[in-house]
Amino acid sequence: MDDPALTSLAGRRCVVTGGLGFIGSNMVHALVAAGARVTVIDALVPQHGGHERNLAGVADDVHVVRADIGDTTAVPDAVRGAELVFNVAGQVSHHESMTDPLRDLDLNARSHLAFLEILRAHNPRATVVHTSTRQVYGRPRYLPVDEDHPTAPVDVNGIDKLAGEQFHLLYARVHGMPTCALRLTNVYGPRQSLLIDGLGFLPVFVRRAMAGQPLSVYGDGGQLRDCLHVDDVVRAMVLAAVTPEAVGEVFNLGHPDALSLLQIAHLTADAAGAGTQVATVPWPDALAAIDIGSFQGDYSKAKRMLGWEPAVGFRDGIARTLAYYREHPWYRSST
Amino acid sequence: MDDPALTSLAGRRCVVTGGLGFIGSNMVHALVAAGARVTVIDALVPQHGGHERNLAGVADDVHVVRADIGDTTAVPDAVRGAELVFNVAGQVSHHESMTDPLRDLDLNARSHLAFLEILRAHNPRATVVHTSTRQVYGRPRYLPVDEDHPTAPVDVNGIDKLAGEQFHLLYARVHGMPTCALRLTNVYGPRQSLLIDGLGFLPVFVRRAMAGQPLSVYGDGGQLRDCLHVDDVVRAMVLAAVTPEAVGEVFNLGHPDALSLLQIAHLTADAAGAGTQVATVPWPDALAAIDIGSFQGDYSKAKRMLGWEPAVGFRDGIARTLAYYREHPWYRSST
Repeated sequence: MDDPALTSLAGRRCVVTGGLGFIGSNMVHALVAAGARVTVIDALVPQHGGHERNLAGVADDVHVVRADIGDTTAVPDAVRGAELVFNVAGQVSHHESMTDPLRDLDLNARSHLAFLEILRAHNPRATVVHTSTRQVYGRPRYLPVDEDHPTAPVDVNGIDKLAGEQFHLLYARVHGMPTCALRLTNVYGPRQSLLIDGLGFLPVFVRRAMAGQPLSVYGDGGQLRDCLHVDDVVRAMVLAAVTPEAVGEVFNLGHPDALSLLQIAHLTADAAGAGTQVATVPWPDALAAIDIGSFQGDYSKAKRMLGWEPAVGFRDGIARTLAYYREHPWYRSST
Repeated sequence: MDDPALTSLAGRRCVVTGGLGFIGSNMVHALVAAGARVTVIDALVPQHGGHERNLAGVADDVHVVRADIGDTTAVPDAVRGAELVFNVAGQVSHHESMTDPLRDLDLNARSHLAFLEILRAHNPRATVVHTSTRQVYGRPRYLPVDEDHPTAPVDVNGIDKLAGEQFHLLYARVHGMPTCALRLTNVYGPRQSLLIDGLGFLPVFVRRAMAGQPLSVYGDGGQLRDCLHVDDVVRAMVLAAVTPEAVGEVFNLGHPDALSLLQIAHLTADAAGAGTQVATVPWPDALAAIDIGSFQGDYSKAKRMLGWEPAVGFRDGIARTLAYYREHPWYRSST
């Protein structure tokens, strides 16, 4: 990625929370490549996909603070002096949010509120980009879903992520802190833990397709998803951070190609080239209760205000993703 | 109150959380009068308006458990066997939610999620009525505000109360628990602490009007509010609890008479008859930042599904309220 916005970050002090995880570590690699000075705050919560190996190749250039983002002992020093904060930390499993709801609330809402309070006390001028989720909308009333669509989350994770996001926007309005939020759709790409279920269907598809195991799609597989390559997400976060007009705003990130889950499964299987079969299976009850049907995000606000649009199509992106995991086999053999 | 819905609760086991507070204690008095068997769960959080004196006259008929509603030691025994749960506990100060946001999150969201988890484990068939707030809507886009109006809270309290409410509705949808929620507007009446600022403008108006002190209205005083007498709120809660169709639903409670803050101040001053003056003053910055402008709730859904509408007008209700505080002077002299 050779983006002018990114290269403008050379020498600047950045914090990436959740920087040992999937999206966070890709952010770190991009920032280090651009010459930024990077501090990572990550609690390495088990089963959330974070791992020090995600920083392989850049670890010597990054200062890692192993702490929850709400930790008032470790975090003030880590954020003091930072110009840009990419706040990616969070619990992503919808299913786990239903089995351990208090933990999800703590990780996705309470810690973020505590983090904002730390920033307010120690570095209120830092620009903060929070990664929220399309899950805040719940079951769409119309497609594509724009930012004015009512929020009506269908699971604990969605409720907690919405609260975490709203705290960020509130701190812009009320405390004048330069914060904004991006509502992400399904993200795929390198450095995602493939062996932990509950991180979404994409890593499961990738893992099974590469192993030649059949892919299961729930129901008729007709639900649409607008999958995003993580490089496009990283670029959106950088653009949001360097755009003054973004302060206090929330932006959808989406993709113009809405594909059915069945199409996504077939494209992944084809790209893997391992003879993988795709089958539809009935919905498990626990997941049917929190399913949202089809989704496609309207990202015209991000296009207009940030100059962002996705550059990677799924066919190309999934091929690059599989190539990465072929070169880095431990993602498929170890959590 | 001699309502058939209320008399139908004779002999039934009820839990009132926050039952030592303003709305909760009025609920308790009504339930005891109807012959229900009442357990109160209340943490008596300082400065939140709860006091054992609110149960004067019925204390011998009520079992009081002094605990946070999320307390896994004390609460399981308190809720086991209950048929109806009126979940009124909460932190109500918008201003305090901005100065101590983590505490507000704990009291309005985290404790409620923990309470629902306790109910799910120990009494998932209990009917639960949660008291939410119009604050979840934020600054209205149109009036009157119906339940489809987008939620966009303007302060930490609103974000947290929304999360707490959404957890209740989610537990109905996903776990099949018979829960529902009522979004309350400004409530006044007996047994409200008058000496604690931050519980809303009404108790401040009542206290000052009775003392002959001038009433201050921010800005031009033109913002509309549809104030509800607590008796109307209690009746709505009972109706929601005994209406099977209410499960999983959220209902606005509102009043057809939307009055300006200036009118409310003048009516209160006139009713007090102490020569109280009313003046408009500039908005304090901290409050202006989280003000929502005019509000009136559309309660037609509650009318249609619960058979509820308010019975008490402000002029009559505030006169009765002042009469109560004349007879119970400690509310004006001691917190």
